[in-house]
Amino acid sequence: MDETIRPGEIAVAFDPSSACDAQLVFIGHIRTPWTERGQCPRQGDRNDGPECTIIVDPMWHRALTGIERWPELQLLYWMNFARRDLVIQVATGKEPQGTFAMRSPVRPNPIASSIVALRRVEEGKLIVTGLDCLDMTPLLDIKAHFGEAKLPAP
Amino acid sequence: MDETIRPGEIAVAFDPSSACDAQLVFIGHIRTPWTERGQCPRQGDRNDGPECTIIVDPMWHRALTGIERWPELQLLYWMNFARRDLVIQVATGKEPQGTFAMRSPVRPNPIASSIVALRRVEEGKLIVTGLDCLDMTPLLDIKAHFGEAKLPAP
Repeated sequence: MDETIRPGEIAVAFDPSSACDAQLVFIGHIRTPWTERGQCPRQGDRNDGPECTIIVDPMWHRALTGIERWPELQLLYWMNFARRDLVIQVATGKEPQGTFAMRSPVRPNPIASSIVALRRVEEGKLIVTGLDCLDMTPLLDIKAHFGEAKLPAP
Repeated sequence: MDETIRPGEIAVAFDPSSACDAQLVFIGHIRTPWTERGQCPRQGDRNDGPECTIIVDPMWHRALTGIERWPELQLLYWMNFARRDLVIQVATGKEPQGTFAMRSPVRPNPIASSIVALRRVEEGKLIVTGLDCLDMTPLLDIKAHFGEAKLPAP
């Protein structure tokens, strides 16, 4: 975890190891081409980004039933390298901003949310485009996304 | 927690009290007009829905700095009454579906994601429209939402 702080940034006294209001289970992980943070794109590209693979743990495979009918999905995943105690952050070349006015990975609960395009489904795996996260990122949730391409429920 | 199961639904052996891959902190709570689950609308309405109040815990107040410039926000919150072990679910009048092909509150990690319209900001509070959750729902995150009304970063 990166513990450096930039001029203008403000941290609060928050120890994530004592955060115990609720517990998460990792339901799988995400394979992407990016193995260092500096390689990750600033934002995912659903049209032209590289294919990434969502690998779902076997106990949850049946929960994928019917997922192929959604052109787009919402993914929630855990940004496990992000510190959690900054309330004011300074993005490169920007003024200080409040954490909740940003989408930085650094936040009290480092949960990322991305809308991805579903390209195909294999046994326990989803091939998607539109991600920008590190390889091996832990997966928290997959949800149907009711976007422009809204479909009637079956 | 509701432990009933409908014909066609499938649960896996998952004990959420043993889910310890990561821990969440509640950063506040949400006040809505709905005190029973049957009262909640099926989906929030950003245009015509009632005003709801996001109450942020004092230790995170500074993280709201600058939030007033976003017309829309993404909220993540914790559906603390939902069971977490269903992989196949049967919504009323529907065929059985996989949990990840739905947006049901029942899922391994019951994190809800909603896009809301920000009406105004008060000290440590956000007044928003577009929610459909129970009164006193625990809050996990507030993020800038880059929607149609995309603004340049400051």
